[in-house]
Amino acid sequence: MKILRIRMNDLTWQEEDVKPEYAALGGRALTSRIVYDEVKGTAHPLGPFNKLVFANGVLTGSLASSAERVSVGGKSPLTGGIKESNAGGTSGLKQGKLGYRAIIFEGVRDDQQIVHISKDGVKFESADWINGKPISTAAKMLDEKYGSHIGLYIIGTTGEMKMNLAGIAIKDKDGSPTRYCGRGGMGAVAGSKGIKAIVLDDAGVDRNRPQQPEQFRAALKQYVEWLQETPQTAKVFPEYGTAALVKTANRLGALPTYNFRTGSFEHHESISGERLRETILERGGSGTPTHACMPGCIIRCSNIYPDETGTTITTPIEYENIGLLGSNLGISDLDEVAELNRLCNEYGLDTIEAGATIGVLMEANVLPFGDFKGAKQLLEEVHLGTPLGRIVGSGAALAGQVYGVYRVPTVKGQSMPAYDPRAIKGLGVTFATSPMGADHTAGQTIRAQVDHQKPDGQVEISKNAQEAAILFDSLGLCFFSASAIAGRWSGMAEIVSAYSGVKVNEEELFQMAHETLRLEHAFNRAAGFTQADDRLPEHFYTEVNPASGTTFDVDEKELLAIGVEGYR
Amino acid sequence: MKILRIRMNDLTWQEEDVKPEYAALGGRALTSRIVYDEVKGTAHPLGPFNKLVFANGVLTGSLASSAERVSVGGKSPLTGGIKESNAGGTSGLKQGKLGYRAIIFEGVRDDQQIVHISKDGVKFESADWINGKPISTAAKMLDEKYGSHIGLYIIGTTGEMKMNLAGIAIKDKDGSPTRYCGRGGMGAVAGSKGIKAIVLDDAGVDRNRPQQPEQFRAALKQYVEWLQETPQTAKVFPEYGTAALVKTANRLGALPTYNFRTGSFEHHESISGERLRETILERGGSGTPTHACMPGCIIRCSNIYPDETGTTITTPIEYENIGLLGSNLGISDLDEVAELNRLCNEYGLDTIEAGATIGVLMEANVLPFGDFKGAKQLLEEVHLGTPLGRIVGSGAALAGQVYGVYRVPTVKGQSMPAYDPRAIKGLGVTFATSPMGADHTAGQTIRAQVDHQKPDGQVEISKNAQEAAILFDSLGLCFFSASAIAGRWSGMAEIVSAYSGVKVNEEELFQMAHETLRLEHAFNRAAGFTQADDRLPEHFYTEVNPASGTTFDVDEKELLAIGVEGYR
Repeated sequence: MKILRIRMNDLTWQEEDVKPEYAALGGRALTSRIVYDEVKGTAHPLGPFNKLVFANGVLTGSLASSAERVSVGGKSPLTGGIKESNAGGTSGLKQGKLGYRAIIFEGVRDDQQIVHISKDGVKFESADWINGKPISTAAKMLDEKYGSHIGLYIIGTTGEMKMNLAGIAIKDKDGSPTRYCGRGGMGAVAGSKGIKAIVLDDAGVDRNRPQQPEQFRAALKQYVEWLQETPQTAKVFPEYGTAALVKTANRLGALPTYNFRTGSFEHHESISGERLRETILERGGSGTPTHACMPGCIIRCSNIYPDETGTTITTPIEYENIGLLGSNLGISDLDEVAELNRLCNEYGLDTIEAGATIGVLMEANVLPFGDFKGAKQLLEEVHLGTPLGRIVGSGAALAGQVYGVYRVPTVKGQSMPAYDPRAIKGLGVTFATSPMGADHTAGQTIRAQVDHQKPDGQVEISKNAQEAAILFDSLGLCFFSASAIAGRWSGMAEIVSAYSGVKVNEEELFQMAHETLRLEHAFNRAAGFTQADDRLPEHFYTEVNPASGTTFDVDEKELLAIGVEGYR
Repeated sequence: MKILRIRMNDLTWQEEDVKPEYAALGGRALTSRIVYDEVKGTAHPLGPFNKLVFANGVLTGSLASSAERVSVGGKSPLTGGIKESNAGGTSGLKQGKLGYRAIIFEGVRDDQQIVHISKDGVKFESADWINGKPISTAAKMLDEKYGSHIGLYIIGTTGEMKMNLAGIAIKDKDGSPTRYCGRGGMGAVAGSKGIKAIVLDDAGVDRNRPQQPEQFRAALKQYVEWLQETPQTAKVFPEYGTAALVKTANRLGALPTYNFRTGSFEHHESISGERLRETILERGGSGTPTHACMPGCIIRCSNIYPDETGTTITTPIEYENIGLLGSNLGISDLDEVAELNRLCNEYGLDTIEAGATIGVLMEANVLPFGDFKGAKQLLEEVHLGTPLGRIVGSGAALAGQVYGVYRVPTVKGQSMPAYDPRAIKGLGVTFATSPMGADHTAGQTIRAQVDHQKPDGQVEISKNAQEAAILFDSLGLCFFSASAIAGRWSGMAEIVSAYSGVKVNEEELFQMAHETLRLEHAFNRAAGFTQADDRLPEHFYTEVNPASGTTFDVDEKELLAIGVEGYR
């Protein structure tokens, strides 16, 4: 494996050996290490000194179930800190086949380029002919030109316009460019560097093989058994996807509703996982409630949502879309959620940031809660780059400042995902202290055996969840395998050892995670983060969530000990 | 003297004794001390836990020349740090006559109120009948209702909408509400508290008298002689006002031009102080090149700028307006600068922030450089609160983020005044390290006897200028008396001693200034500021200012020693 370094300012490139100290790293551990090593904390996120790194997980390419994720990292224009965002789909596999553990982009330029990577090296061409188009259209044009076998990293119009909520899309196993490295504005960083699309052309390249095939097969067999015997991975996710959470969250008072004013939604039944499944099955056609985003995944949490004629509207509808584009906006119709989700996918928006931002504008009376047409119009304005669209494209924190709004559900400039931190306090701790800003994937605690509404023990739970999250994100593993893997990390270490040929144990894996978190906090300190940034918005401490009857009251000193100034 | 505390959430008030530890403090020293003592660093600037403090300078009310300034302080929504902004005019005098060294506002509310303060106490009435109107109209309506003798603190539509660049206006000695506590969005804080206007009704109240009248008269006589024998205060300011600086700055390569791309303007002659004076004298009518903003001021740096018929367009046109609303936008016509200035005054915008923000939008190709009509339209949109107007109203830093702009001339979220920090490096040090963000009034170095384009010695010069600035702002003295006072602080201590009746010496005055700066940095640390915030925007370090041939290259370590982490 090599590292590919591409300078976008002069369109030059070179291959480099993987440094020994990077050899055991993948995914988030590798993007964060490279960003820490090569980018100053004070660099302008959209300037020539920021870098954008695409790094495969350690297992990515192995075709182990749910282990094909790839990470994108850099300094975030949204948070001003270090950021990693990852997704499934097919690009990790193809990047690995092409031999690149990581691709590092440097420099900025004003125009947009298509970066074509194949066994013959790197080529550049103007992206003029695909700029400004919906992502599905642009991806289809690239497929037509280069063949539908190609992998893609591609940004939408939001990325071209360097908007803070721009993500980077990846094709799923059926070629749909709807898997997102969504969070933190990595699409804006790509746009600033003129990277409209990266074509991963793996024609004529064989896939990577495990170094110790027999041990690998054996360890994998065991892992698959765990997945098949765990209810969450064997039944809940395949049948309902993440949307199974709607009812749970509503019951806990954690479902964001009306800009996080409360945590239960009077119409939650009509946007529940059960309703989602029923609707898809009833409508049939191209719809399916069970769909894998990456080859070989047996969890298949994704879905394809059709309209009444059975024609696909969007893929996938997840809990986060439902929470942020649904209840948070007072919208209770899955078709409406699907349409908003589709537009986010077409224009390259992080759905979480988009929903939270529209919620803040509803709070500011720019449009009323429940106004689906207005919300849809806002997403069209984002695509067109009108002033109002630019405001939406800047994310909730900036939109809140632009409209002088007091209640803005963000931490470190990033919108909260669909969990009210007053009702699931472990996630509140994660939101407050993670170097990634408010991000459930940086330390999910919802399945911890604890009273989520009580403050006790949440810091410890979040700390463990934050380190575990890094482990998943560094191995390329989907977090949805977590229920099956819990307590079985030595088995995962066997898979890693057999695949890479270098023996690692459980302790070393956790050491990598711990060290990654330490470096990320160190980067953020250099970028100017302090314990003042390890806080939820003021009103979560002082205003009771009527659904849970609680404020956020986790002991501050204990919480700060796992944040930017505690984690040294 | 008392402290008046007003809670806007329930419209109640009380008088308090001045605490002994506040007794020697005035102006900025007092606002910053109260904010430090009563507001948490992490408070939301527009939320219920921020406070807004109006504090008179120690000499304010004494009618010593150029010593009638009043300070407004709080946590800034623009910078996120502590802020003090001060202005001349008549309100300080009247606040002092009413017996209040400081007025502290607490709480927030949704509607706007008029707060009427007289010898009979505090009354509140809805501001509905003056909301939404240009400030001159609203002020006239208040004059008609309460009598033209009243003093005012008043916000414009920008403040009502809680925009970051909203200032607070004060009437000048002729009743024109055009003296501004402009910087840092204190008008937005007022708006969040529902303080549309504060009427200072001093009917039936006698003015404050010096405690030691004879000593005071003697000390004052000496001070006036200094003002009269110093060329700057006796001739340059009265004749040309601050606009005398246009030629100097242009020669140094420090005149911001085309969004601070360069420091000299090909049309600088047509916006110079000389041209300003000629034009005003030529047109006559209500115009005058020499005008005092506050009673008793013999410097009279202000002016009234008339149109071709001799009718007033605006007052005053200052160097900062010319630099930011003129050359920085590629605008070279004083009538156009005057019109933009007028609109800023009518709607309550900080002219510096407004000009820098429009410059950033020109950089982003929202409108072309030199487009006066477009710039004017933007200010109208601010007043109307359209999305684009909201973006402008958010200030340059946010506007830059909304449009993904790389070159944004701000520090700590606040726009630079009209001095390119690559060409006047002492000011660059002030911009980088002042707790106030980029602000020339927080440490002006342009008159220091030094090669401004060289890095050497600038840190020391800025440090001294920053402490001196606090002294001026705390005594209520206009900084324009600085040339006359330089090296004569013991004489000023005599004035202070005779006026207040408490003996202070020069050293104690500087100790107060030093202590204030220390507290301000401590507040900012609690608010999350670090040395990463003590920096100019990246491009000032890497891109040469073609007019001066320099980048900003002051030694970083030396600079950081007088910033937020050095100043403990």
